[in-house]
This record gives sequence, C-alpha cells and structure tokens, in this order.
Amino acid sequence: MAVVSVQQALSGAIAPGEKVTVRGWVRTRRDSKAGLSFVNLSDGSCFAPIQVVAPASLHNYESEIRHLGSGCAVIATGMLVPSQGQGQSFELQAEAIEVVGWVDDPETYPIQPKPHSLEFLREVAHLRPRTNLFGAITRIRHCLAQAVHRFFHERGFYWINTPIITTSDAEGAGQMFRVSTLDLANLPRRKDGSVDFSRDFFGKEAFLTVSGQLNVEAYCLALSKVYTFGPTFRAENSHTTRHLAEFWMIEPEIAFADLDEDARLAEDFLKYLFRAVLEERGDDMAFIAERVQKDAISRLQAFVDAPFERLDYGEAVELLQKSGEKFEFPVEWGLDLQTEHERWLTEKHVGRPVVVTNYPEQIKAFYMRLNDDGRTVAAMDVLAPGIGEIIGGSQREERLEVLDRRMAQFGLDPVQYDWYRDFRRYGTVPHAGFGLGFERLVVYVCGLTNIRDAIPYPRAPGLATF
Amino acid sequence: MAVVSVQQALSGAIAPGEKVTVRGWVRTRRDSKAGLSFVNLSDGSCFAPIQVVAPASLHNYESEIRHLGSGCAVIATGMLVPSQGQGQSFELQAEAIEVVGWVDDPETYPIQPKPHSLEFLREVAHLRPRTNLFGAITRIRHCLAQAVHRFFHERGFYWINTPIITTSDAEGAGQMFRVSTLDLANLPRRKDGSVDFSRDFFGKEAFLTVSGQLNVEAYCLALSKVYTFGPTFRAENSHTTRHLAEFWMIEPEIAFADLDEDARLAEDFLKYLFRAVLEERGDDMAFIAERVQKDAISRLQAFVDAPFERLDYGEAVELLQKSGEKFEFPVEWGLDLQTEHERWLTEKHVGRPVVVTNYPEQIKAFYMRLNDDGRTVAAMDVLAPGIGEIIGGSQREERLEVLDRRMAQFGLDPVQYDWYRDFRRYGTVPHAGFGLGFERLVVYVCGLTNIRDAIPYPRAPGLATF
Repeated sequence: MAVVSVQQALSGAIAPGEKVTVRGWVRTRRDSKAGLSFVNLSDGSCFAPIQVVAPASLHNYESEIRHLGSGCAVIATGMLVPSQGQGQSFELQAEAIEVVGWVDDPETYPIQPKPHSLEFLREVAHLRPRTNLFGAITRIRHCLAQAVHRFFHERGFYWINTPIITTSDAEGAGQMFRVSTLDLANLPRRKDGSVDFSRDFFGKEAFLTVSGQLNVEAYCLALSKVYTFGPTFRAENSHTTRHLAEFWMIEPEIAFADLDEDARLAEDFLKYLFRAVLEERGDDMAFIAERVQKDAISRLQAFVDAPFERLDYGEAVELLQKSGEKFEFPVEWGLDLQTEHERWLTEKHVGRPVVVTNYPEQIKAFYMRLNDDGRTVAAMDVLAPGIGEIIGGSQREERLEVLDRRMAQFGLDPVQYDWYRDFRRYGTVPHAGFGLGFERLVVYVCGLTNIRDAIPYPRAPGLATF
Repeated sequence: MAVVSVQQALSGAIAPGEKVTVRGWVRTRRDSKAGLSFVNLSDGSCFAPIQVVAPASLHNYESEIRHLGSGCAVIATGMLVPSQGQGQSFELQAEAIEVVGWVDDPETYPIQPKPHSLEFLREVAHLRPRTNLFGAITRIRHCLAQAVHRFFHERGFYWINTPIITTSDAEGAGQMFRVSTLDLANLPRRKDGSVDFSRDFFGKEAFLTVSGQLNVEAYCLALSKVYTFGPTFRAENSHTTRHLAEFWMIEPEIAFADLDEDARLAEDFLKYLFRAVLEERGDDMAFIAERVQKDAISRLQAFVDAPFERLDYGEAVELLQKSGEKFEFPVEWGLDLQTEHERWLTEKHVGRPVVVTNYPEQIKAFYMRLNDDGRTVAAMDVLAPGIGEIIGGSQREERLEVLDRRMAQFGLDPVQYDWYRDFRRYGTVPHAGFGLGFERLVVYVCGLTNIRDAIPYPRAPGLATF
C-alpha cells in the first residue's frame, strides 16, 4: 500500500481500485444525510484537494471524523476510485482515517475556509501557505525559479554565486545596508573621533550587495556564459507596494555578444519561463485567472506567441511626443522614460513586448557601452503590457580607455574599481547582460498588486517576528 | 557557418569537415618549424581547450598570430577535423583568426600557463576562473547546484526563499551580523542612552540569517515537501580554512516523516549529487584526480555504491571507548563527538558513510524531537570518509507542550517564537529535515583544503576589493 501525494492520486497515474494512503490537512468537511462525510484533504502538492469519502462504519467516525475541521492533519487510507463529483478526477474511499494533529481552538484558527484579506494574511505569514492563493503563488514561484535554472543550464550557462556581503558599492545604486559586528554601544574610534572600521569583521566597511553584475562579468570573461540568481538588497525607505528591501535578482552575462544578442536572450528567456508556467502550473493559473486576474492565462499566452518589437529610444521619444496623450511627466530626448510612457509604448502603441534600445548616455550606468554617436549607450529596457519595464540590460564597455573616461565622468574612484578595470586589460571582449527582479516576475504572473505577496515571508509593518 | 562552444566542437556532435566558429581565450601558442602555429583556445564551456591550427597563409599570421599569448581573446573560423594529436578528438583548421582582445602587458599578466599557488590566486579572484583548476571548480560547483534543484524538483519539493534579513536569532547559533541603516557617526539614542533601534530601517534590530529552517518548517506544514537553498551567515571570528562568514546552505524539510525517513532522504540526496558529478563532469574530475586529490573519483564512486551504515549514538560511544585509539578529546556518553571520533567511526570502523542517530538531548538544539527515553533526541549526523560530518538533521519536536518545556530549558523567550509555536497548535504533524553547507560539498568533491577556494570570490585577508 503506497503513500502517494494528492497530486499523484489525482493525476491518473495510479490505477483505479488501488489502495493508497494520502496525508494532508483538512480544508473542509461536509456530512451527508446518507451517513457519511466528505473530507477535502490538501497536501500542497497541487492546487486541488482530494475528496476523502468517510463512511460511518469507520471506528472513529463519531468520535473524531465528525469533529474534523479546517487545518486538522490526517492520514487517510483507502481505495482510489473515479469520482462522480464534478471537477474532480478521483476520490478516496477511506477504510481508515488517522487524525494526527487537531486544531487547538477551531474558532480562532486564522485560516478559515473563506476568503481572507491579503493584509490579514501578511500578518500570519507562517500560516498563509495553507490558503489556496498562497499555495498557488508558492508553486508558481517554484516553477519559475526551476525554469530559470533549467533555461540557463540547457544553454551552457554556469551559475555563479557572487558575494552577498561586499566592501564596494557596486554601481552607486541607491542606499545600502551596512553589515557589521561592531558593538554599537561601544564603537571603536579613531583619534579624530570617526568610527574605526578596521576593527570591524572584515577590517573595513561592508554592505549588502545591490547587484552581482560587476562580479559576474569577470567570470563571463573566463567561462563565456554565466548567470547569477540570488538575493540583492536596497535600503530604500519607500514602503511601497512595488519595492522590497530584499529581493532575488537574475543576471545573465554573455561574452562575445552585443546588445542585439542580449535582447534575443532576454526574449527567449522570458518566453521560456512563461511557457513553463503555462505547461506545468495550469491548475494554479486557472485559480489565478478565476479569482485574481481574469486575463492571467491569456496574457501569458499572448506574451509567448508574439515576437518582441524593437524600438530605438529616439524613435520612442518621437512616438510619445506625437501620441497626443497627456502625460504627467515630460517627454524629451535626454530624459528617462517614466512608467506612463513605457506603458503607452507597450500597451497602446505596440500592443506586445517591446525592447527599447540606445538610451542617452547621461541617464544610464557608467559600465554601459558608449555607442559610436558618442551620446547614447548600448542599453536596453524590455517593456511588457501589464507590467512595464521587466528587464534592464546593456552591452558593457569593454574598452578600458572609454570605461575610464566614463568613470571619471560619474565621479567614481578608479582605484576602487581596479579589479573591474583589470580584466579589460587582459583579453577583453564585447560582452552583454541583463538583470531582472525575480519577485516582479511572480507579481506579474500571479496578478498581484503588492510585491510582499510574492515572497514567502513579507516583512510587513506590524509583523513582529519576521 | 555556426558559432559553437568548445564543448560542442569537441563533443563529436558536429560532423567532421563542417565549418564552424569558436571564440575564447588563448591558453598557449606553439609555432612549428613547418610554418604553422598551434593555438590552444578555451572558452570555459568544458575542461579541454580546442587546438586551432593556424597556417602561415593567414593574412595576419606574422603580424598577429605569432604574437598571441596566454589570455588573448580570439575568434577562429575554420574546418573541424578529427585530430591527429593525442588526447584530443577534434581540432580546428583555421581559415581566419580575428584577435578581439590583446593582453596589455604579457609579462605582468597574472595568469601564466604554469601552476600558481592557491594563495596567489585568491588575490586575483577576478582572474582565477581562467585557470584550469578554478574553471573545473566552477563547473563542478554548478553541476552540484543544478543537481540539488533537480533532485528536489523531481521528488515534488518546493523551493522556499526564506528571509536573509531576520529580526530573530533563529536558533541562538553563533555570532550574527547586524544589518542596519543607522548613521554610526550619529546614532539615535533612547533616554537611557541605549541605541534606539526603532529608528532603524526595520524598526528593530535586524541580522543576517544563520538558517532558514524555522521559517521553512511553516511551509512544510502546508506544502509537505520543501527546501531552502540560499546564503546564510556566521560572524565567527575564526579565520580558518574550514569556515566562511557567508556560505550557501541547503535545508529540506518533509512532513509526516520521522528520523528514519530523514536519513533515507539524506542518503538518496548525497548519492544523487555525486552521481551527477561523475556523469556530467568527468573531464573536470579527471583533472582533479590528476592534480589535486588522487582518489577524487574512486571515493565518490565508493560513496555512491555503498549503503550508509546506521549507528546509535550510544553504540558509537561504546565503539569509540573500546577502540583502543588514543583520542585527544574524551569520549563519554553525554559529550559531543569530535572530528577525530567521527573520522575514526566512518573511516576506520565502518569504512563508508554512517548515520549516527539519537544524541543526548542536552547537546542538541531545542527544536529536535525528544525521544521516549527522555534523555536523547531524534537527531542525526551523516559522517563520511574524507570529510567527517557532512549533514546534520533531526525530527522536529511537533508537540507544543514538549517544545515549550525544551525552550524553557534552553532559556528561550516563547513570545519571540510564538509564530514557530503557532503552527504546532493547528494540525501539527511529525516532520523532519536536515541541513548541509554547500561549500563543504564542493570542498569534498574537488579535494580542496581551503574552503575559500570553493566560492567564486574569496574574502581573503589582504584582498582589498571583494
């Protein structure tokens, strides 16, 4: 008698009539007048629970089964049979149901079999994976993450775990978190009164990384195709529904490649991920489409089916200026595109994902490759309907003398970046890459409005323990 | 004319006589008296470089090809033909070689075609992936990491990204790094002079996580099979060759499971990983066996072939006491096993991996399940020849009243762990899991002696920039 997951039991892979054991948590119980109970059991292996039919003849029917409520843990053994009920393939005719864990006080159990507000669920983050929605989000997130690794592995990329704790501010990008073991109550001081970081753990100031890109570039110039997929951190004091202090970032980097190849990689990558979700998580996506975002499936399908458009930044600016739309922010060559502009381009003008390329050099990072026109860099943003900017990337400046000029222009200290300059001295090659925030993908696929619902543990205000 | 990786060119997947382009960095150049040059080209896609045969008839033969040295980047196009040379399957008869990147000053290029000391290479971490050894380590590390994800995915586990920044000291385990955005030069103070952490980014003290286990347990009690694979941190001021401040940890957790099932999972897991390395990275492992650790392959093979032994802690102590060995540390029921004891057990006594179970409760963590004897817990350590302890795990205490007693005994504040106690109130079930440090695996497989060589960027003393 095999122990099987609910997913296996419902999949049709087990012959009807077979005796199996399933284990999980009760979602609902319904007693029939015919003297039996229907117990819906979920083990998180898939969206659907399995219906366990409990006859009154079970020795613990009156003493236990009829007291089962949401959240109780049970082990049910019986015969797997095709179900008569609508929308379920198989059910279990129980011969034995062992109650493993009761719910202490069913009245106060936070996860009742009814919809809960997302705000409320953020406060019980350790229990919310037991809900339909967060079970679905967790499985979809997993599916996307596996697809990320599979995509790169199949194409010969190597995963590089770049440092989380860093002693250099990678790209001057935003506020960083300090990492320290100094005793704040008793800080070591230099003679001039300043904090003596030579006494800190790493012998100097240390921070949480904002990006692994610069580090992974060096590996790219040795292994040709590499990627990072790890946590990054921004200490931005904007407690918005779009920003996280801690989020997972994906950053591939390819050698002997230009911006065009970079854009093709980005397109292949996103389509591969969304195809994986459509193929592997149809059950969870059906729920998302029913309860969260009506077009959740059709918009992924459209994304996968259509070729991305390419648009030069200069063209994009002209299109926006001629659009006749009233934008809140100005549109002018030299200014960055705002979300409203991006959404008009991808949603109204093109109607599918679009790659905008060759931005003015002054609004992009120092490491992006200067184009021959001297005023734009080989940068790209991938914009998509319903989400806006989803990927940012560029060809990197592989010419040391141009990089040095750009660094001087940005006021960066070349000594601090000497290692980054270094591999441009030794067999430098054109290379390119991009970055995207993993949670943004989850938000898009699951139709969420608050990015805190895309991570396993939100650090919500008022949540004391996480 | 296809652009192919060196791995593809050498694999035999491309028909001999086909015209292809390969791109990479020169390892060596040898000029033959017959008026041609042999250029070994590596792109990091596999261990072996490809031999590019450059005839004197190339237009840039005298001007460029005869000046190529280690580290130069080139693009070579020509016909792929079976090689006459020993130990190489195919070579490229070049029709064109474009030099993309020169080495500025070949005399001072740190990566010369000769062996370098590992100490030296730690100081040029951004260039060391260009060496044979670190190319091999990087590919083996990648292979292990992919196998980790594949193993769990194939078995229906979901990957959970538990928080990196945490406001609770997960298990009182060792020194933690503080994470803060407070201005150290101007710390906010309470009236009593203490630091006012309510003004810090998260409104309270925050640290880098030492383990995701407690967090992932909650997901286990919803999704049944889950795992973490992410960075964890220990601020231990031991600059040893065995400890890292930042390392990647793998922590699976399974519901409705006891210690026996946990041990079986650990055995299946390790064997799966090592089988993947043997099957997928034979090239790199051959190099490791030749240059680093003679029995690198045979010991992995032995590991995979043998069933793990099981040994009760009490039995282990008796065996050690009767062994007649002179140990540095005492052996007595109630004391923890030291590395010398573990190695004697696995290497001398059993001769293969052994799982030691049921340790005295006072030497193990509060969350481990108390056995019926009242004096041991359902803990396990997996010990293996050549490495010692490689996995630590346990069945978790799922009974709230026992957990509370244990927490009191360990002096832990139940309020801080209320969320952890909470999911034991609602459908608690037996569950178990284990943890292992990913870099320890890499160290073992690659036969390394310093764990800083198992990570992409070592934070070596004296290394200024990482």
